[in-house]
Amino acid sequence: MTRRAALHRVPMAHPGDVSAVEALIDGGLDPSAIVAILGKTEGNGCVNDFTRAYAVAELGTMLAARLRTTREAVLERVAMVMSGGTEGGLSPHFLVLSVAETEEAPTGALAIGAAFTPAFRPEEIGRMAQVEATAAAVRQAMREAGLSRPEEVHFVQVKCPLLTTARVAEAASRGREVATADTYESMGLSRGASALGVALALEEVPRTALSDAAIGRDLSLWSRRASASAGVELTRNEVIVFGMGSGWAGDLAIAHDVMRDGIDLPAVQRALAGAGLDTGGGQLDPQAAERVVALLVKAEPSSSGEIRGRRHIMADDSDINATRHARALVGGVVAAAVGRTDLFVSGGAEHQGPDGGGPVAVIARRG
Amino acid sequence: MTRRAALHRVPMAHPGDVSAVEALIDGGLDPSAIVAILGKTEGNGCVNDFTRAYAVAELGTMLAARLRTTREAVLERVAMVMSGGTEGGLSPHFLVLSVAETEEAPTGALAIGAAFTPAFRPEEIGRMAQVEATAAAVRQAMREAGLSRPEEVHFVQVKCPLLTTARVAEAASRGREVATADTYESMGLSRGASALGVALALEEVPRTALSDAAIGRDLSLWSRRASASAGVELTRNEVIVFGMGSGWAGDLAIAHDVMRDGIDLPAVQRALAGAGLDTGGGQLDPQAAERVVALLVKAEPSSSGEIRGRRHIMADDSDINATRHARALVGGVVAAAVGRTDLFVSGGAEHQGPDGGGPVAVIARRG
Amino acid sequence: MTRRAALHRVPMAHPGDVSAVEALIDGGLDPSAIVAILGKTEGNGCVNDFTRAYAVAELGTMLAARLRTTREAVLERVAMVMSGGTEGGLSPHFLVLSVAETEEAPTGALAIGAAFTPAFRPEEIGRMAQVEATAAAVRQAMREAGLSRPEEVHFVQVKCPLLTTARVAEAASRGREVATADTYESMGLSRGASALGVALALEEVPRTALSDAAIGRDLSLWSRRASASAGVELTRNEVIVFGMGSGWAGDLAIAHDVMRDGIDLPAVQRALAGAGLDTGGGQLDPQAAERVVALLVKAEPSSSGEIRGRRHIMADDSDINATRHARALVGGVVAAAVGRTDLFVSGGAEHQGPDGGGPVAVIARRG
Amino acid sequence: MTRRAALHRVPMAHPGDVSAVEALIDGGLDPSAIVAILGKTEGNGCVNDFTRAYAVAELGTMLAARLRTTREAVLERVAMVMSGGTEGGLSPHFLVLSVAETEEAPTGALAIGAAFTPAFRPEEIGRMAQVEATAAAVRQAMREAGLSRPEEVHFVQVKCPLLTTARVAEAASRGREVATADTYESMGLSRGASALGVALALEEVPRTALSDAAIGRDLSLWSRRASASAGVELTRNEVIVFGMGSGWAGDLAIAHDVMRDGIDLPAVQRALAGAGLDTGGGQLDPQAAERVVALLVKAEPSSSGEIRGRRHIMADDSDINATRHARALVGGVVAAAVGRTDLFVSGGAEHQGPDGGGPVAVIARRG
Repeated sequence: MTRRAALHRVPMAHPGDVSAVEALIDGGLDPSAIVAILGKTEGNGCVNDFTRAYAVAELGTMLAARLRTTREAVLERVAMVMSGGTEGGLSPHFLVLSVAETEEAPTGALAIGAAFTPAFRPEEIGRMAQVEATAAAVRQAMREAGLSRPEEVHFVQVKCPLLTTARVAEAASRGREVATADTYESMGLSRGASALGVALALEEVPRTALSDAAIGRDLSLWSRRASASAGVELTRNEVIVFGMGSGWAGDLAIAHDVMRDGIDLPAVQRALAGAGLDTGGGQLDPQAAERVVALLVKAEPSSSGEIRGRRHIMADDSDINATRHARALVGGVVAAAVGRTDLFVSGGAEHQGPDGGGPVAVIARRG
Repeated sequence: MTRRAALHRVPMAHPGDVSAVEALIDGGLDPSAIVAILGKTEGNGCVNDFTRAYAVAELGTMLAARLRTTREAVLERVAMVMSGGTEGGLSPHFLVLSVAETEEAPTGALAIGAAFTPAFRPEEIGRMAQVEATAAAVRQAMREAGLSRPEEVHFVQVKCPLLTTARVAEAASRGREVATADTYESMGLSRGASALGVALALEEVPRTALSDAAIGRDLSLWSRRASASAGVELTRNEVIVFGMGSGWAGDLAIAHDVMRDGIDLPAVQRALAGAGLDTGGGQLDPQAAERVVALLVKAEPSSSGEIRGRRHIMADDSDINATRHARALVGGVVAAAVGRTDLFVSGGAEHQGPDGGGPVAVIARRG
Repeated sequence: MTRRAALHRVPMAHPGDVSAVEALIDGGLDPSAIVAILGKTEGNGCVNDFTRAYAVAELGTMLAARLRTTREAVLERVAMVMSGGTEGGLSPHFLVLSVAETEEAPTGALAIGAAFTPAFRPEEIGRMAQVEATAAAVRQAMREAGLSRPEEVHFVQVKCPLLTTARVAEAASRGREVATADTYESMGLSRGASALGVALALEEVPRTALSDAAIGRDLSLWSRRASASAGVELTRNEVIVFGMGSGWAGDLAIAHDVMRDGIDLPAVQRALAGAGLDTGGGQLDPQAAERVVALLVKAEPSSSGEIRGRRHIMADDSDINATRHARALVGGVVAAAVGRTDLFVSGGAEHQGPDGGGPVAVIARRG
Repeated sequence: MTRRAALHRVPMAHPGDVSAVEALIDGGLDPSAIVAILGKTEGNGCVNDFTRAYAVAELGTMLAARLRTTREAVLERVAMVMSGGTEGGLSPHFLVLSVAETEEAPTGALAIGAAFTPAFRPEEIGRMAQVEATAAAVRQAMREAGLSRPEEVHFVQVKCPLLTTARVAEAASRGREVATADTYESMGLSRGASALGVALALEEVPRTALSDAAIGRDLSLWSRRASASAGVELTRNEVIVFGMGSGWAGDLAIAHDVMRDGIDLPAVQRALAGAGLDTGGGQLDPQAAERVVALLVKAEPSSSGEIRGRRHIMADDSDINATRHARALVGGVVAAAVGRTDLFVSGGAEHQGPDGGGPVAVIARRG
């Protein structure tokens, strides 16, 4: 059996606008083939960003009607990875991932697999329990995608939960202490534990190096391919693995690289080149930009407070959260390379790439 | 008499930290030779951004002590152009401009001239009175710099006032109506009128095309070289003209170009090339980046709500002002090209470059 | 036929949490009797506040399932008035209004009527077309509630649309100019036109005093009973009239007063007293606080920039919108009087009460 | 020797506007008699609130000129306690405290004493070293004010430092770990340690109950009279003790109470009554409001996420910091009682009053 992965990028007019996804279905996309939907929504990407949950609710309601099932059943099966924050010039959009069997001969092409962890209790978030469960889910998603070796994997997108005041109180009522009572900080710990789970599954970091204490602290531990996004609307981790699979057909390819800091344009250009796109003197020409189906990248303020020796103000700004600054910065850098703005820049890169940098992946149609 | 312009870029630890400017003086810079100080401070760049006034106050106090005069006398003579907002990864810094006579032979190099308008009444802001007065100040600054032809001018930086609730009320108490009672909107009108004043002086726009009604409205009118920044701390316009002057010596050169939108990396690379810096495959190498003494650029959300056909959310975000998004975006694009973050990205580009774009100038040491 | 109005106040855990409304239905509330749901959601209350639309979507989905109809049919019939912004200590909540026929004898009690205008074109928003249509809807809602005289009306809640960048562009594409291209400003004009529509219907302001030019400008024109809230999720006005009707039964009473400024505690205490609640030395005791079923009040920054001669910073703050400051302030004042925080404080009081003040209404169970 | 304390409240037009303090001096206030200046400035009250430092710099520059000394000497002697944040309707103002000898007979009146701790190293902030040093400074200030017994003290205002990214890095470079690397969180720990220092000196909490681990954690430990405010502009604690002293003359009296939560209007009314002001039916009449020379109160979000059982959103809002919400709420409550808005509401009440509440003090002229 040969499979073919498709990835449609469509705009949204607001977080509840799923009309462009509906139009894909009206145009022939089989809704039952959809395995995941990633969304870049225009909220603040932090604790009270309800644009993510709103988009998930509307996607679920729409797909339930199309598939004549319940919203719960849809959300149980389809991974919904909404990432809030389109700071700077970023453009809100959905990435609709589908997988179908095909009569075509396999070409070695984009492979996609998804899996979920069980729901986490509040006290598990940001700790080894989340790391281990995520690693197990990555391995399961690889199996589903027919990717047997870690080096076949180019990107792993994880959506993970966070702690709210209510969840912290619920744990306390059971006599359990959570990793942090600061709801905003919990997002970072949850992303960090998730990323280390990816690193563990992809053999980037040995199990012995990992511990509760290392999560969010030992920044020397990081994955080259993990991307984690935290949201209030879920309690489990949802994992999507992207790779190049020998059993897959189609004209899509994926490549990745690692930005060493927030202004590492050359890394972005290397990732584009890896996917067959030549940036030449800097920015893709319009024809090449059209071939970029998705660019996924992590953004994060460096903990040193500096970029190449010069002070940034991200962490000291109490009006705009640091992750918002970081997304805006990296959004500018990747848009400079690609020449378009509907790019999936996700904030909070704890253990995802080096401190202040992050993994970048490009999915493109072959020329 | 030959003159030589110097431009020192120094960091600040916070808006009141002028220690690096003091260190320049301790290191030999003649404080009486300083004609202007530009500063990129870390406030919100909007109405209640007091980081600009704070920096000006501390620079004035320090220079008054050094020059054994009063702060008022310093501020009367030295143009202080503070621009708030270091969103994304931008790094707060001062640009200290000085001019001194020299024994060297003139080489045709960076030329600097400064001039001021009289103080404006609130009802003049954002109207033709501000346009005309700015044009007169630009012509005066050109004369002072020995630049006789408009094409010798590469950049004109203007600092202009804004309306506060108190200033609007003051005008109303005299029976005068201001251009707008919205204090935030007044910043845009003041910048727009200032930019059209530059365009008038540089013969980019004919006098007959200008009117009160056109300011802030007719976006087809714009300067390729104007940069205006509004602040609550002044009531007049302060104008600094940068050009290449035949009577000037030194190793500094300036070039400019126009970004057609917020992600126009090629325009930035052309400006760098014009100043003798080759970006080759995208980003300057560290040696070349060191030769960039200053990059000044304007940033603005496009009024269409789109960048190259894709929606941005800058104007619809009520948590972060649109100019903050625009600075962050353009900051990422120019940092991608230069490989450093202490760049002077100034928000609010009304009539400064095309809608959604803006002028970019590079001052660099010749290789 | 005698009718009885009920008003249930229930909390929400987040803007999409309609479980407490479902619990009401499970507990016996007939969903077909619901005529309106007001909600105080925790967004910014400004342009990009999607918490309102999210709540409406979830309420619509839930009620459609309960009533075995479509979401569109629910939203066509039930007025959904979501008001964003729970700044300070305000607590997010829904107010579920229902009307049912009863065998009881009429007592003269709370009366409720709802009506809708047709959808507005963008160029009608903030102009007389919106005023006239709103007045017609108020008259229709009064008829429905059996309230024949304006003085029987104690509060009129209006939900009205706003302009987005897309809507402005749509109008421009048809050659029409909108009242303002500033999306945030459009919220004020829409609220103002809606309030003047109420004032017109309630004979508080004569028709001859009204004009396009007066909307948002002539602050001497205002209603003592109008409350308008703008949201991106609708294109028509939704009107709910509250009064004391002789044909109504039940133990609910409503009273209103007008806060002359944002700290007018005595006005709040008068409104409480009007509804039969004595504040005595300041704050209601817990038993009395329980009898307050709803408090609805408008909040607005004074355009003078002062409260009783002392400067406030609401209008000059570019980090937090002025309406957010105003809601927080008034929320503190009304919570001080009532001793609880689930109060419906709605921002943006253009033509709703005097400049800087606003109407306040109390619905309470009789002792 | 009898002393007399004076307290002048004056407005500021912006954080650098010290003209009203100058006017006091022009009007006869001896600048050498000034022992402290408290200021409520209009910044965000968080990490990057430079309005505090700006005000301090301008006050220092002005007083240095008046006293013919240096700014450093002024700041060494006069306690400058700037508290950022005038959310809601609060009005920016300075409170100028002065002490002079007098020929009058002592009446038992407002007594003021000030003292400073040594500068703290970053690793001492938020730990017992700061607690102990603060307690010592409180005792010294009491001695200076002639207050021998803790019960004579009604309020202790402390200004304390915070950690910035740079200060954290500096400690790390010496191999020292700070209490927290989160700059915003450091403000809370610094305030908490300072408050516990006051509680220790005033014998409200025994020494044995205190430890590094208790700071910021054990919320059962709190002072009824401490008020601490953190700012980036200082590295030591500055302490001002307010009490009723038998050796003091004048017509000023001080009283205090404790708000049990953010809407505890009765506590505010009790404090007003304690200072001789009767609120009767709720709000002071204008004549009584004039007699209120200063109201100082702490504001804080309750860690339960609720106020009297109803959810607030302060801690889950990533656009506006929780302390800003809390100041706005309490500002509304105290303004409701007093009928004016130039009140010193200070955010962050860790160990200052019960969780979610805080001390309130009133200084008033006797009738």
